[in-house]
Amino acid sequence: MNYAMVLKNLGILLICEAIAMVPSLIVAIGYRGNDVMSFVYTIALTGILGSLALLIKPKNKKLYARDGFAITAIGWILISFFGALPFAFSGSIPSLVDAFFEASSGFTTTGSSILRDVEILPYGILFWRSFTHWIGGMGVLVLTMAILPTIGIGSVQIMKAESPGPDPGKLVPKLRQTAKILYGIYIVITIMQIILLMLAGMPLYDAALHTFGTVGTGGFGIKNLSVGAYNNVAVDIIITLFMFICGANFALYYQVIKGNIRGLFKDEEFRLYGSIVLVSILLISFNINGTFFKSFWESLRHAAFQVSSIITTTGYSTTDFNLWPGFSKTILLLLMFIGGCAGSTAGAIKNVRILLLFKIMKRDLMRIIHPRAVYTVKFNGKAVNEKTLSEILTYFCMYMFLYVLAVLVVSLDGFDMATTISSVAATLGNIGPGLGLVGPMGNYADLSVLSKIVLSFGMIIGRIEIYPILLLLIPTFWSKANV
Amino acid sequence: MNYAMVLKNLGILLICEAIAMVPSLIVAIGYRGNDVMSFVYTIALTGILGSLALLIKPKNKKLYARDGFAITAIGWILISFFGALPFAFSGSIPSLVDAFFEASSGFTTTGSSILRDVEILPYGILFWRSFTHWIGGMGVLVLTMAILPTIGIGSVQIMKAESPGPDPGKLVPKLRQTAKILYGIYIVITIMQIILLMLAGMPLYDAALHTFGTVGTGGFGIKNLSVGAYNNVAVDIIITLFMFICGANFALYYQVIKGNIRGLFKDEEFRLYGSIVLVSILLISFNINGTFFKSFWESLRHAAFQVSSIITTTGYSTTDFNLWPGFSKTILLLLMFIGGCAGSTAGAIKNVRILLLFKIMKRDLMRIIHPRAVYTVKFNGKAVNEKTLSEILTYFCMYMFLYVLAVLVVSLDGFDMATTISSVAATLGNIGPGLGLVGPMGNYADLSVLSKIVLSFGMIIGRIEIYPILLLLIPTFWSKANV
Repeated sequence: MNYAMVLKNLGILLICEAIAMVPSLIVAIGYRGNDVMSFVYTIALTGILGSLALLIKPKNKKLYARDGFAITAIGWILISFFGALPFAFSGSIPSLVDAFFEASSGFTTTGSSILRDVEILPYGILFWRSFTHWIGGMGVLVLTMAILPTIGIGSVQIMKAESPGPDPGKLVPKLRQTAKILYGIYIVITIMQIILLMLAGMPLYDAALHTFGTVGTGGFGIKNLSVGAYNNVAVDIIITLFMFICGANFALYYQVIKGNIRGLFKDEEFRLYGSIVLVSILLISFNINGTFFKSFWESLRHAAFQVSSIITTTGYSTTDFNLWPGFSKTILLLLMFIGGCAGSTAGAIKNVRILLLFKIMKRDLMRIIHPRAVYTVKFNGKAVNEKTLSEILTYFCMYMFLYVLAVLVVSLDGFDMATTISSVAATLGNIGPGLGLVGPMGNYADLSVLSKIVLSFGMIIGRIEIYPILLLLIPTFWSKANV
Repeated sequence: MNYAMVLKNLGILLICEAIAMVPSLIVAIGYRGNDVMSFVYTIALTGILGSLALLIKPKNKKLYARDGFAITAIGWILISFFGALPFAFSGSIPSLVDAFFEASSGFTTTGSSILRDVEILPYGILFWRSFTHWIGGMGVLVLTMAILPTIGIGSVQIMKAESPGPDPGKLVPKLRQTAKILYGIYIVITIMQIILLMLAGMPLYDAALHTFGTVGTGGFGIKNLSVGAYNNVAVDIIITLFMFICGANFALYYQVIKGNIRGLFKDEEFRLYGSIVLVSILLISFNINGTFFKSFWESLRHAAFQVSSIITTTGYSTTDFNLWPGFSKTILLLLMFIGGCAGSTAGAIKNVRILLLFKIMKRDLMRIIHPRAVYTVKFNGKAVNEKTLSEILTYFCMYMFLYVLAVLVVSLDGFDMATTISSVAATLGNIGPGLGLVGPMGNYADLSVLSKIVLSFGMIIGRIEIYPILLLLIPTFWSKANV
């Protein structure tokens, strides 16, 4: 581990965070809220601490794989901690554990909240809360498209090696340029959605904050009834569409811009993603039609919104799906594990992994029937190597084991089964609301301090694809020697 | 596929089943029950059908791997179907779907029941119901120790290749002899338990039936309150102990008989199994103490019974653990997925797989820290090859995907989350009772016909380690050519 370089990079991250708080400070000043000073203090503290780290002059400027993991894991924790300070300083969320939960939830684009009433929050704080989603989404794009592939991790590596999208190593040789392209797409999508929401009748402030929550697939709302509070069909449709868009691989949009529209529909992951969304919408529409909504059109509208919201791990709601029948709720619970596509801002296991898991299972069955035949697993027409397949299988196991571990801790709180199992699924997968007590009309306020801490880390673990945090727990990870 | 040989073998299986019904017929006659004729009809029908198949004279007598799978899968379904007939003919379970559920539950040593009141059943039927556990347990021993390894399946192969137990290929060259040794151990354990239970005050009939349910890790009781009806500390302790014994690898007992007692405690799977049992008992004891039982001793007694019952996939109960706090229930739910050891009569994922999954995950983390180092996963000191590791990972995925699929179907019934998710865990893992409606004081009667059929097949799929049934769904599996 190159400690000096790790510290220096963490310092840069903190300075970036301080700068990222400036728009929220401006909003707070503009609305003359009582939250102005909470931003001033936090920006000063974060900025100074970050600048101190900049004083470090590393002898060796080389960053190794392990250093990258350390920066990712510790960075995400630090950012969440300092991002929580405005909530605490302003008195909006007095408990530091709660504030940390809310900030992790923001940066990891989860959207789970411990707030019983979001409508009483000052404008600046509400802005910061949603803005963390937008920053988090950007962070994830860099993480999955740039950092993780260079240090060799499962499905993300596949995306780099196998996807028909812009291979960062080929199209644009420099990391910086790849990031620029992705950020460009991200910002264009953001502006488009803000404009469309305003055309649908939303004020700029509401439109911007809901857009932050959508493109980052976060899901923090600014109304207690979430998007349902607007009861606006156009708003529902726009957000449904943009959630779906932001759950797909951003690399595909680069292709589309370059004129290769068919590439989008040829991508196996996108096809699986689209199919799961379509089938889920139809199944739920039929399941809720008649009892919950009078017209099929209305059932379809809410089913489409909820399915897109959950599978893209956003977490907005237009209605209390916790009251829906068991079948619909079970589908939503399963979508919480599937998540969006690799290379998007969505979380959870991701479609490319699910797809390859199915292909591996089929291959193993075929191998038994024809033991002497050779089967290769292909993704978008190209063979995927055995090491990557093994890593995907391991990732799935890790995900499930961590899930189980967290469920055990949360079960100590003694809530009903639906609350316990969905709260962990919704945080580890970065969705937001779950079922039962933590459903769309509920919140995470009643959970114990222990559960809140575990779920906060669960959000971070899920967000940065497990490995970086687990590595922190292995002693040799911290050794100075790079072997 | 060698159709002639497959049919012939299925015929032999049916004849065996007809013979296996004779003891139940004798019991029915002895108690002068109204169930005598139901056995006579079934024995005649099953025996004649089986004999018809014997008339087939196969040209090619060679059995290929695929044929073995077909016999296993179809055989288990057929046996369950014909085993259900006495229930139906006697009027004890009028619905054929219910009778099939009960018989599959018996032969797969699951112990889930659709009966609201077992105490009104005639003696012969009750005997048959428990006896199917005992036969099923024998079938599983042959399956996992003899048939599956020869056709190459994951963890079972490990057991053959890596376990310190009697390697069927080395110690006793012939399959038949291995089976004899295992059956010998099985029968000795059976006799020991019957005697001990009688010494504890149980009548012979009750002792025998509870023993069938224990050594087969089945769990069908003959009282509506299961073992709790006896309220006998000695009985509880004896059954706890024998459940634990029958959840461990039988090969280890062969070693113990040969004088190698230390081998038992050196076996990594047994150590994991023992540790999980111990830790679970302690956690639950502390969790239920005070509120549910007055003395810690009593908490310990019930916790030990329930933990052994669930992890060994038996399913007896001494108390309504569905009323226990969420933490205890969650532990029990997790134990439903873990199950016993390979080479036992227990079901579910099994400890050796869980152990190796953890080792694989640790290996993958170490690989990231030291990319150039070579790591091998070892089991009991010997390296496990990559193909086996990959098969174990795939098995875990298959188990989880089938679980999810069944949960979706059962969720259509609209029961609470605890009932839905535990009913599938309890059947796929061959446990028996779950939580909620299907808890120890409940039953599976209220589930829909579709759910009952799906769960019946779930029991069979879980019992024969998934592959054989899934293979039936692949068209080329049925081709005549053996490539």
